[in-house]
Amino acid sequence: MPRHSFADVDCAVAQAAEQVGDKWTLVILRNAFQGMTRFDDFIEHLDVASNVLAARLRSLVEAGILERRPAPGDARAADYKLTPKGQDLLPLIVFLHQWGERWMGRPRAPRVALAARKTGRPLRPVCVLADDGKALSARETVFRMGPARSDVLLRSQEIVARRRGTHAERSKP
Amino acid sequence: MPRHSFADVDCAVAQAAEQVGDKWTLVILRNAFQGMTRFDDFIEHLDVASNVLAARLRSLVEAGILERRPAPGDARAADYKLTPKGQDLLPLIVFLHQWGERWMGRPRAPRVALAARKTGRPLRPVCVLADDGKALSARETVFRMGPARSDVLLRSQEIVARRRGTHAERSKP
Repeated sequence: MPRHSFADVDCAVAQAAEQVGDKWTLVILRNAFQGMTRFDDFIEHLDVASNVLAARLRSLVEAGILERRPAPGDARAADYKLTPKGQDLLPLIVFLHQWGERWMGRPRAPRVALAARKTGRPLRPVCVLADDGKALSARETVFRMGPARSDVLLRSQEIVARRRGTHAERSKP
Repeated sequence: MPRHSFADVDCAVAQAAEQVGDKWTLVILRNAFQGMTRFDDFIEHLDVASNVLAARLRSLVEAGILERRPAPGDARAADYKLTPKGQDLLPLIVFLHQWGERWMGRPRAPRVALAARKTGRPLRPVCVLADDGKALSARETVFRMGPARSDVLLRSQEIVARRRGTHAERSKP
């Protein structure tokens, strides 16, 4: 485990960030969703150093996101395939694609179009929905303490409240 | 720009990964969505080295995700606030929270509950939706070439097709 691992931090965002919060990991996952499975193919496509790729693949296998199996027809090679936990990352990759096209894309046309396989029609933008299906902005959502309390959120809330209190004090006449 | 920057890679996922594909960046963004704005508050909450935090905040400002403004009432301090591009990352943080709770959470209860501010009711799971609102799995979606073609996707498709061709050849009797 790296020195600053978030694996044991009591926060799901931090634990998820520990497993997928790495730019090489994200482009490896993008390629995996496009059907790529082989070490040599990732190397060819990503222009990545083999030790960097090997470390990322090993971490993804350890995290249960990719599964390593002997490749059919080549006993020396392995296929890396998305597990159910890995398949469940689809919204992450689709969101990064859509956000990247919105904010860093070329002026008029998307480079890649994500579509429903059956109809060929474009996907909806990945967004945060209330239980009635209404899209919510950041201001319309709130982080609340769950039944299993998180000290990480508690401390964050305390720090934010203290800072706002300070502001309020200072802005008194 | 770091040596292996994805900033000029012709793929929105890679460009997005360059800006947010870092575990410290992701927990900084989580805290920003919880209302945290100050360097000292991030330091206190994250147990992060100050040079690491400073570098991440600088990158987020350069990417236009955070905006740095003089703090009210303290001329020496700065507030880091999410820009519209940063606010647009809400689905990323909500997704990482939900995915982390699903796969690494405690057995019975979530630690943090994301909810709609107005109703207090829980959010829907962030997922990939077809244009008719149906949730789609990875197998039900496809990466297609957009009007502005992407060499990055083209090469990935070629490599995957070549590998599948090889398998098909080999599995012939």
